[in-house]
Amino acid sequence: MARWQPHASERLVAAALDLFEERGYENTTVIDIAERAGLTKSTFFRHFPDKREVLFGGDTLAGRLADGIADAPAAAGPLEAVAHALEALGRETFTAERREFSARRGAVIAANPELREREALKGLGLTAAMAEALERRGVPDPASRVAAQLGALVMTLAYERWSDPAGHDDFGEAVRQALAEVKAAG
Amino acid sequence: MARWQPHASERLVAAALDLFEERGYENTTVIDIAERAGLTKSTFFRHFPDKREVLFGGDTLAGRLADGIADAPAAAGPLEAVAHALEALGRETFTAERREFSARRGAVIAANPELREREALKGLGLTAAMAEALERRGVPDPASRVAAQLGALVMTLAYERWSDPAGHDDFGEAVRQALAEVKAAG
Repeated sequence: MARWQPHASERLVAAALDLFEERGYENTTVIDIAERAGLTKSTFFRHFPDKREVLFGGDTLAGRLADGIADAPAAAGPLEAVAHALEALGRETFTAERREFSARRGAVIAANPELREREALKGLGLTAAMAEALERRGVPDPASRVAAQLGALVMTLAYERWSDPAGHDDFGEAVRQALAEVKAAG
Repeated sequence: MARWQPHASERLVAAALDLFEERGYENTTVIDIAERAGLTKSTFFRHFPDKREVLFGGDTLAGRLADGIADAPAAAGPLEAVAHALEALGRETFTAERREFSARRGAVIAANPELREREALKGLGLTAAMAEALERRGVPDPASRVAAQLGALVMTLAYERWSDPAGHDDFGEAVRQALAEVKAAG
């Protein structure tokens, strides 16, 4: 059997999301997901450590946020550097094509305590990655942690609104609106 | 056998902390903890659902924070109301007598990924409880979430400094200093 399968990761994620919606996260096995994707269990485990991780796609988001903060103009303040990184996510990751998937993913996570916990811990990891990236720009602690916390809140608000079918279809625009609200409230 | 034991909860926490320090969290069982405290396994399970919860003492902290926010003067802004609640914690919970215990507890948690995860999720629960308490004061979302996030950061900074033997011995003073820093950085 060929070990390499084109788009295996994407097929597994799509199959998992379908099955979680159809029969619930608890009632879906790794074998079910692999079968639905037309792949084997061992292919699944080459891409994900377990069933829970299928919807959390590795650490690429933390890396992209850190890169976006490093790429911000030198004159940008800490929160502006985070906003720069979030707007880049809107062009590269949270694109219009991704919006329906994100809404479906969010509904599956909201329905399961284990997935909600995983999502919460992922959010803390992203906040820590943003604080570290700000420190590498010379922002001292605790200003780095303040900007990372506020940036995480901007990201949460923008993501909630963008992934809501009734909300913004442009993630970058949702970021700019949430940033203005957070600044006004801070 | 008597079902009620005086100070059973405190004795179990003290025994658990001793054992976690001596032999590590992974190498300590519920039976070990109960034996060290001079109690039975069933007494342990009347106080805590499992080994991990011994260091996390229920939801009393969330309730105290919510009460403290409700008790803040009507004229206090959202972040001031959170600071009011944190200063009350310094008088009732994070007292001078508790400081050494908190430092030891922090070292045990820092050494174990499972406990670090539990601590992180507890922090998110406290942040959510503060946001809800602010909303009950009439603070709209997202201003409630901004103040709760900043308040959580003030609490983290104050706790880090207060539980450090080289830091502040007064939690309320550590809160006021952290609040000034977070405001200056926000």
